[in-house]
Amino acid sequence: MRTRIAPLALACAAALLGGVGAVVAQSSEPIQPIVPAQQVNLGLVELGKKLYFDPRLSKSGFISCNSCHNLSMGGTDNIPTSIGDKWQQGPINAPTVLNSSLNVAQFWDGRAADLKAQAGGPIANPGEMAFSHTLAIGVIESIPAYVREFRTVFGKPKIDIDQVTSAIAEFEKTLVTPNSRFDQWLLGRADALTKDELEGYQLFKTSGCIACHNGPAAGGNSFQKMGIVKPYKASSPAEGRSAVTGKEIDRFSFKVPTLRNVELTYPYFHDGAVNTLAEAVDVMGQLQLGKHFTKAENAKVVAFLKTLTGDQPSFMLPVLPPSGDATPRPSPFK
Amino acid sequence: MRTRIAPLALACAAALLGGVGAVVAQSSEPIQPIVPAQQVNLGLVELGKKLYFDPRLSKSGFISCNSCHNLSMGGTDNIPTSIGDKWQQGPINAPTVLNSSLNVAQFWDGRAADLKAQAGGPIANPGEMAFSHTLAIGVIESIPAYVREFRTVFGKPKIDIDQVTSAIAEFEKTLVTPNSRFDQWLLGRADALTKDELEGYQLFKTSGCIACHNGPAAGGNSFQKMGIVKPYKASSPAEGRSAVTGKEIDRFSFKVPTLRNVELTYPYFHDGAVNTLAEAVDVMGQLQLGKHFTKAENAKVVAFLKTLTGDQPSFMLPVLPPSGDATPRPSPFK
Repeated sequence: MRTRIAPLALACAAALLGGVGAVVAQSSEPIQPIVPAQQVNLGLVELGKKLYFDPRLSKSGFISCNSCHNLSMGGTDNIPTSIGDKWQQGPINAPTVLNSSLNVAQFWDGRAADLKAQAGGPIANPGEMAFSHTLAIGVIESIPAYVREFRTVFGKPKIDIDQVTSAIAEFEKTLVTPNSRFDQWLLGRADALTKDELEGYQLFKTSGCIACHNGPAAGGNSFQKMGIVKPYKASSPAEGRSAVTGKEIDRFSFKVPTLRNVELTYPYFHDGAVNTLAEAVDVMGQLQLGKHFTKAENAKVVAFLKTLTGDQPSFMLPVLPPSGDATPRPSPFK
Repeated sequence: MRTRIAPLALACAAALLGGVGAVVAQSSEPIQPIVPAQQVNLGLVELGKKLYFDPRLSKSGFISCNSCHNLSMGGTDNIPTSIGDKWQQGPINAPTVLNSSLNVAQFWDGRAADLKAQAGGPIANPGEMAFSHTLAIGVIESIPAYVREFRTVFGKPKIDIDQVTSAIAEFEKTLVTPNSRFDQWLLGRADALTKDELEGYQLFKTSGCIACHNGPAAGGNSFQKMGIVKPYKASSPAEGRSAVTGKEIDRFSFKVPTLRNVELTYPYFHDGAVNTLAEAVDVMGQLQLGKHFTKAENAKVVAFLKTLTGDQPSFMLPVLPPSGDATPRPSPFK
């Protein structure tokens, strides 16, 4: 009998939850659903996708955008700080590229205004891809199929870094993750969330997490000090926003990370020091809000956070055009 | 008028070539067409594809099978020798994974009998992924979605390295590249090759290249000494087949590489010392055959070789299951 009662009980619970969901006026929630990419130039996207996966934009020929913002892994590398040319240890955790088009600015300190401005950074950063824009353009110009594709897309005879970063940024615009269970709930599917997940969301709001993690990306739209109530002992030397503004008040202020797909973007914080969502919620509660979540509360907030995992980007692995005889060769060991 | 005559001339040439093609009894050619993968277990393939792209099988969490056998780049890394854990320089050029199911054995020295035996090698090689089979299994067992998928595929409660390498090998079985222009010609499309390409193929046969580069993979089916007529000065310390057999006669004998997709698998030779097909053909002619190809002959052989590029593997970029709270974390910098 028991196996027959269980589904019935579940159905009742679902009906009750449906009631709870229906009461909430989802359209007025402080987090809004992720919308699929719009006004996309598909020629640019396809070219940008290739460039995003092309390690020939690095000195070594080994590191591509996808190495540290891996689209199989939530748009991150899932290590505390990234590995750069010659295995240099990066100073900061690689933020996810997913939904990054929704960010107020790019990088943890917001030093790039938009995706296009960001895309050129790692290529020329000696600690990351360790190349230069001039060298990257030299490589691209020597690859016949790239030359044809750039001409098709831009209609100009000459390739420049502006075209490269435009194409990468256009591809990145497509890396949004709609259709999470939380968004399904926001859009009216009342039974998309469990009771615990909904209670977790209520806690997330009533405890104050929502003050910074709001908007479609549940973050990404402001800079905040890391360690408001209690100081955070970072394992990274990064100064934060003050490195950009030069203002002391911005010291240790970082862009609030998106919580979209946070289940996939471990480890957490700008120094990648925390491995689990439970610990991240605990630390955030104490340091930013002066709040000690009980174990049960913590579990509910974590359950809510896991409902923010959306549809991951879905596309064919790109096939890169081969180098030509005159293509400058990578220097992995020099 | 000239622009009108040219297409006509081309049509005549095509008709003539059609004649040439039809004369050749393609079914008796020493190179046979690549056949799509058969008798494939799709559950194993999908699991193996994830494992192939999963850098958590390495100590650093940064290196996956796809790092050095990149399926966007002809199944190679397109650098002379590969980059391993902590940026160690590998001793040998990473051979392409494409069509590797057709090889007589795996690795340049044939030390692994088949794909399954090969797949476990790099994971535990301290110079490559620098992990161990035990540690890799520990990571996989801690990832809930992997546990479910292994159970679905193998129907057993326990995960072992044998299952891991079976899945990777099954995925690799699918990485064949049918439908090259050369194969279209072999299969009867007489106009699939140009006059120069056909002449290049004739030169390839009459000069003796075909003695080693034959069969469906145009190679991969025997071991041969590198430098038969004249010695080859390798920049790699690799001994070749003698490291496996212990026989002096096998010193500097290597598995003949496949020429399938050779346009994509630069740089060439076991030490990756040669960047262009023109140079590779020239060196091979002199060192293996005592033959000096003229510039025109060389160009024709290269033109033929480029007709061996087949359909590249085409699949959705896999999305990897996230680590659990208890998953051991990578050690990129320890």
